[in-house]
Amino acid sequence: MKIALLGTGIVGRTLGSKLVEVGNSVMMGSRSANSPKAAEWVEAAGALASQGAFADAAAFGEVVLNCTAGVASLAALELAGRENLSGKILMDVANPLDFSQGMPPTLTVCNTDSLGERIQRAFPDAKVVKALNTLNCAVMARPELVPGEHHVFVSGDDAEAKGRAARLLGEWFGWEPHDIIDLGGIGTARGTEMMLPLWISLMGTLGTPIFNLRVVTGRDAPSA
Amino acid sequence: MKIALLGTGIVGRTLGSKLVEVGNSVMMGSRSANSPKAAEWVEAAGALASQGAFADAAAFGEVVLNCTAGVASLAALELAGRENLSGKILMDVANPLDFSQGMPPTLTVCNTDSLGERIQRAFPDAKVVKALNTLNCAVMARPELVPGEHHVFVSGDDAEAKGRAARLLGEWFGWEPHDIIDLGGIGTARGTEMMLPLWISLMGTLGTPIFNLRVVTGRDAPSA
Repeated sequence: MKIALLGTGIVGRTLGSKLVEVGNSVMMGSRSANSPKAAEWVEAAGALASQGAFADAAAFGEVVLNCTAGVASLAALELAGRENLSGKILMDVANPLDFSQGMPPTLTVCNTDSLGERIQRAFPDAKVVKALNTLNCAVMARPELVPGEHHVFVSGDDAEAKGRAARLLGEWFGWEPHDIIDLGGIGTARGTEMMLPLWISLMGTLGTPIFNLRVVTGRDAPSA
Repeated sequence: MKIALLGTGIVGRTLGSKLVEVGNSVMMGSRSANSPKAAEWVEAAGALASQGAFADAAAFGEVVLNCTAGVASLAALELAGRENLSGKILMDVANPLDFSQGMPPTLTVCNTDSLGERIQRAFPDAKVVKALNTLNCAVMARPELVPGEHHVFVSGDDAEAKGRAARLLGEWFGWEPHDIIDLGGIGTARGTEMMLPLWISLMGTLGTPIFNLRVVTGRDAPSA
């Protein structure tokens, strides 16, 4: 299928290469067409890869992936054009991390709002599905890098779009249905975005970004 | 050993009962001595259980557990008395959740600060170890309710106190050393406190609070 990838960073390039590898036509969008990073990615990724401005990519894609830096996402999506997002699944992979004060980063929005919600409010005709943002991009694209069962979360207000997005996570990257936990409406994106500080601490403790969480359910406690 | 439990809610009562069960002397502290909930708990928990005002309990305990509601913790610890906390491990189990606007709750502090850090700053002579706050209290006290390997996080600035706290989690509740992940200084309490919105969503999705997270580490990705 035709997929728009917004963003030329490591997340966009990693997901884009995997999407091309499994047979999709992928256009990478950036602020202006012919950005050096996008052109370099297209050359490496082969015939199914192309690049253009944000609006070119969003017009091209049947599905749009927001892989821009969270602090730049709303501006990038404005440039992509609401008419190019209308009616489409907009998979939001971004986290609103602010690195301007050094490590650890803080979030530019959290607690009473989230980037996912802001995007859905700004683009009400897009079907925003927050997904993959609790993972390093290598694990997003290749869940088999982490052994055994582990989970990815999806949040979104449109149940049909969320279900389709979950199936795409399987077709594109190999996430099995039982690996995908539907947290509920887009408001639950607060939870996955607010997991980033813990994720960053864990990366430091574990010494690798190649990890994930497995949600393990137990039996009910005996009544107290 | 002699343990102070601050707070008469379900967390304090559940941990207190387990602590007594494994042979500790536990004094439950509340705003005023002889609170009905504390008195009821003492009667049910038996001869090793006692109760008193926050300051009575803090003076009694070799170790102090903060099981008060996060929004009330600093006031409760002031009543407990800094002289009664000085030099002791203060295990902070609380989360700064604000339920006043209904569900889902928000955090009263997050992102650039945390309850754990606030407590450490307010009581610099106490050895604050944030722990257990990512778990339902039944799982805190009985990790075996969740099958297989799963993890609890500790944060604190005093490495020796943190190590001792980790051993106590084992002696008291059965958390094995490999179940305990040391995230670093007390600043990393931001991460575990900010996990609460995801935890609350998961409780809704799973239909039970009896769950936990297993951190699964993978192998490094092939270079892109």
